[in-house]
Amino acid sequence: MVLNAQSIVNAVLHGNMMVASRLMRDLDDRVDAAQALFAEIYSHTGNAQIIGITGNPGAGKSTLVDVLITAYRKQQLKVAVVAIDPSSPYSGGAILGDRIRMQRHTSDDGVYIRSLATRGAFGGLSRSTLDVVSVFDAMGVDRILIETVGVGQDETDIMKLAHTTVVMTVPGLGDDVQAIKSGILEIANVLVVNKSDRDGADTTAHELFQMLDLRSDNKDVDIIQTIANAPDINKSAVFKLISSIDKHQASIAQGQARDALLHKQATIYLKELVRSLLADKITDIAIEHGGFESLATSVAKRESDPYTVAHAILKDIQQ
Amino acid sequence: MVLNAQSIVNAVLHGNMMVASRLMRDLDDRVDAAQALFAEIYSHTGNAQIIGITGNPGAGKSTLVDVLITAYRKQQLKVAVVAIDPSSPYSGGAILGDRIRMQRHTSDDGVYIRSLATRGAFGGLSRSTLDVVSVFDAMGVDRILIETVGVGQDETDIMKLAHTTVVMTVPGLGDDVQAIKSGILEIANVLVVNKSDRDGADTTAHELFQMLDLRSDNKDVDIIQTIANAPDINKSAVFKLISSIDKHQASIAQGQARDALLHKQATIYLKELVRSLLADKITDIAIEHGGFESLATSVAKRESDPYTVAHAILKDIQQ
Repeated sequence: MVLNAQSIVNAVLHGNMMVASRLMRDLDDRVDAAQALFAEIYSHTGNAQIIGITGNPGAGKSTLVDVLITAYRKQQLKVAVVAIDPSSPYSGGAILGDRIRMQRHTSDDGVYIRSLATRGAFGGLSRSTLDVVSVFDAMGVDRILIETVGVGQDETDIMKLAHTTVVMTVPGLGDDVQAIKSGILEIANVLVVNKSDRDGADTTAHELFQMLDLRSDNKDVDIIQTIANAPDINKSAVFKLISSIDKHQASIAQGQARDALLHKQATIYLKELVRSLLADKITDIAIEHGGFESLATSVAKRESDPYTVAHAILKDIQQ
Repeated sequence: MVLNAQSIVNAVLHGNMMVASRLMRDLDDRVDAAQALFAEIYSHTGNAQIIGITGNPGAGKSTLVDVLITAYRKQQLKVAVVAIDPSSPYSGGAILGDRIRMQRHTSDDGVYIRSLATRGAFGGLSRSTLDVVSVFDAMGVDRILIETVGVGQDETDIMKLAHTTVVMTVPGLGDDVQAIKSGILEIANVLVVNKSDRDGADTTAHELFQMLDLRSDNKDVDIIQTIANAPDINKSAVFKLISSIDKHQASIAQGQARDALLHKQATIYLKELVRSLLADKITDIAIEHGGFESLATSVAKRESDPYTVAHAILKDIQQ
């Protein structure tokens, strides 16, 4: 069955995941018609609360996401998960592993799950994430959870679009200076020390506390200790975690704070989209010339230099 | 003293770090004249061996770099270190911390050290790294060590320009699936399990071994166990590590392998430079319109959508 544009828009706005998935995929595949559809639904966005979950590999992010889904579903809220896997440079694919744990929610109509991986020469992960989050938002999803391994620049960028950022760590990853180095702490609104049955958990929590003290603003951050496996996380810790997230969400839900947030997100979206659309164009031009590999030959032989060749390619774009 | 172009080129080719630092900074600051100078020195590049050192925060990368500097200096080789710190999104700066350890080498004429942090709206860390590595290469440096925290896409990209990639891990970071997820293992030519006095070191080494077994190519990777602090690393482990790096470097030093490597690097350089030069241009255009923040207002108010506005900005670039 081929749907007309208005039917697709209506289906997305009514939360039809099959139609929405198609739109997400078409946006990712640079289908022009998808961008026109997106323009139609975009005015229905800006209502969902977006929660970023980030932290070192193995910190227990998927477990936390699982716990949050369950908690939000109990409150009759619609939940979406955007799970971001840095793709392997060799296979080009993403290995999901512990994502399997989330499968039990897939039969629940109020839970949407989508996995994203990096792609192409110029990335575009942020663009895909922004598009997917917006489509979920237009679908009437109440809480959108973005889960990502969190130390790269790409992923720090993605986290900027979250309203509330939860950063998870585990004891024993190194000293405090190392932790600051990753830049990850500074974007946190809620901090979780997971696997806190391990040695050094109190030390880690204390170090986090001391670091928060050094912040010039955004000091009001809860530090919550949890333990590894879902059934073992004690109920009071989960309750505290959800309260912390709710508290932060409430602080930014209305008035000027809300306007500033929407404006910040629109700015991020626009920058990323301009970057990404241009990257698509560069790729097209390189293909016309036989690809970057062919353009790079004179540079590899040191007959020319990268700046000279790059400026020549840019001239082509402006024609 | 103002140097003319030929004097600057000569000073760089003779290894004058003060003049070279100025060129690196000018390239980073987008000074047109610097690009002309760079074109002059680029034909003198392609001789250095580039070694990437990556791994989780706290894995002991700086210690390893320190050990390698000492070993290469004993062989009378010139060494440069490019230390990459993901910048903090709040302070915009980078905290060096354990970099202090390296300071003892700064009085050695044959050791060059440069720290880089991410910058600007569209990153450009890879461009800066490529520029700095090329200038070191033209200066006659024999070994260039690039040290970076290693799980983000940005940094995986940077690692692609290394001839030999050393990936460090520590025991107890999580199960094997999590480790594959980060994509970091697949680019390794040498694997180091540091802090191997900790519980679980043998398990980690064994898991790495099993994973290598799953690779379709690039299987000949040594796994070396070392222990945390520089004075404590036992000599045989360091010797083994350096032999492993040398063995890999020898396998790619000549003939077709060398040509393929130079071509791959030229391709990476060119792609990154086109991307970065375009990003500069987008920033200029946005500033003309009062910045992205101003352009984003209609998107934030849902009066327009990001695709429509982004396409309008792109039209401006093509004029």
